Amino acid sequence: MDSRRVTRVDASGPIRSVERPDTLAVEAPLTLRVGGDVVTTTMRTPGHDLDLALGWLVAEGAVRHPEDVVTAVACDASTVEVTLAPGVAPPRPRLVLTSSACGVCGSDAVDDVAGRLPALPPGPAVDAAVLVGLPDRLRVAQAAFGRTGGVHAAGLFTLAGDAVCVREDVGRHNAVDKVVGWALREGLLPARAYVLQVSGRASFELTQKAAMAGVAALAAVSAPSTLAVDVARAAGLVLAGFVRGSSMNVYAGAERVRCD
Amino acid sequence: MDSRRVTRVDASGPIRSVERPDTLAVEAPLTLRVGGDVVTTTMRTPGHDLDLALGWLVAEGAVRHPEDVVTAVACDASTVEVTLAPGVAPPRPRLVLTSSACGVCGSDAVDDVAGRLPALPPGPAVDAAVLVGLPDRLRVAQAAFGRTGGVHAAGLFTLAGDAVCVREDVGRHNAVDKVVGWALREGLLPARAYVLQVSGRASFELTQKAAMAGVAALAAVSAPSTLAVDVARAAGLVLAGFVRGSSMNVYAGAERVRCD
Repeated sequence: MDSRRVTRVDASGPIRSVERPDTLAVEAPLTLRVGGDVVTTTMRTPGHDLDLALGWLVAEGAVRHPEDVVTAVACDASTVEVTLAPGVAPPRPRLVLTSSACGVCGSDAVDDVAGRLPALPPGPAVDAAVLVGLPDRLRVAQAAFGRTGGVHAAGLFTLAGDAVCVREDVGRHNAVDKVVGWALREGLLPARAYVLQVSGRASFELTQKAAMAGVAALAAVSAPSTLAVDVARAAGLVLAGFVRGSSMNVYAGAERVRCD
Repeated sequence: MDSRRVTRVDASGPIRSVERPDTLAVEAPLTLRVGGDVVTTTMRTPGHDLDLALGWLVAEGAVRHPEDVVTAVACDASTVEVTLAPGVAPPRPRLVLTSSACGVCGSDAVDDVAGRLPALPPGPAVDAAVLVGLPDRLRVAQAAFGRTGGVHAAGLFTLAGDAVCVREDVGRHNAVDKVVGWALREGLLPARAYVLQVSGRASFELTQKAAMAGVAALAAVSAPSTLAVDVARAAGLVLAGFVRGSSMNVYAGAERVRCD
């Protein structure tokens, strides 16, 4: 959180304006180096930067176990340097598409994710009654949310609905990376017995991150995209959207959602 | 829009579920090549792909006038190839930070944007009464919004509040790129006499894109980040957030917001 002067304008009657300080979510760049090479720069809310780096590496398929990482060090406030264990390959370059097969349906992107997925047993059943309650539990844990209205959140929950890790960030993908990086350090990956709840939409990118972390289910407050649904189905991931109040839509893995 | 089977679960009483088709926003990768080299791949909602490519190049500072582009061609459904005019440099690599000055406050990122900005006269005054009405006007124009709830929108409005271009996308940055690419083709850049209204938050990235397009103001339905405010101030851009109902917060350029 940081403060900036703001002019509050009310145009409901004769227009009035008043100046006051306002608390905003901080956004600043973080560069990730692996073995000395810059692999990504992201705009994030500072904090939990090492987890952000580790979670990003999990999503890219470079890291699966805590012992894949020798050191993760914050060189300064804007740079994290990760040294991978001998034999662990640095992240492959981001998906660059050259075929014409995928421009509308994204099938190559789905195949690319499917090819990186860890081999896992089928996920467990998840309770519908637990899933629909997660957004409220996430909001309760979002201490900062009420102060700025400008941050996204991601939370890792047990199958019983208990929060084990909640992170906020100006970027939805960063919040997920921070949760997954924490889970890696805690030895919880693949997070087969956990549900990832996010505060916004379910995009391809978030669904890929959830699948790479091996969670049982990804639940989003808002809508998924077509490609998010396709990736979830390819990955055997329960995908729930519009999880609000007492209802939700299940877009993938409905056979593993227990309604009794 | 595309359809996927969904299981609708209602847990308000005894849990009931029903299966039905659901309409979702399409997300698929688009690769942009400039002079044969891949410069970016983005996940976007297909449609207006050439404008997306052109708007992205404006935001990167590579393109400022329609004549900077010789051709923009959709090679296939997932690739756009742009040929720049002789003497027009391809986009510089994305910001990669090596200094420690910026990790918390992002000052290097602000300087980087400021260094790319076109030289422009001061922007015009904008009416507070017009600004607060833009979210409603944007929603009216978002034909797809009511169908999926999962897409972001960006709209370019005159200073009188008339929409001249509205685009939707699963990615907020893509919606802005599509609007800016359209404005480039129409010869409207720098868009000094226009306001850009976006449906979500104002991030560093969106504010950079608005500044590079030379709009008078960026208005967002939700909160800006600290770095968005800092970039807007450096760029002489009016930045309004929480534009809802009949009120808003002005975070930058308040002296150019007319309240009479």
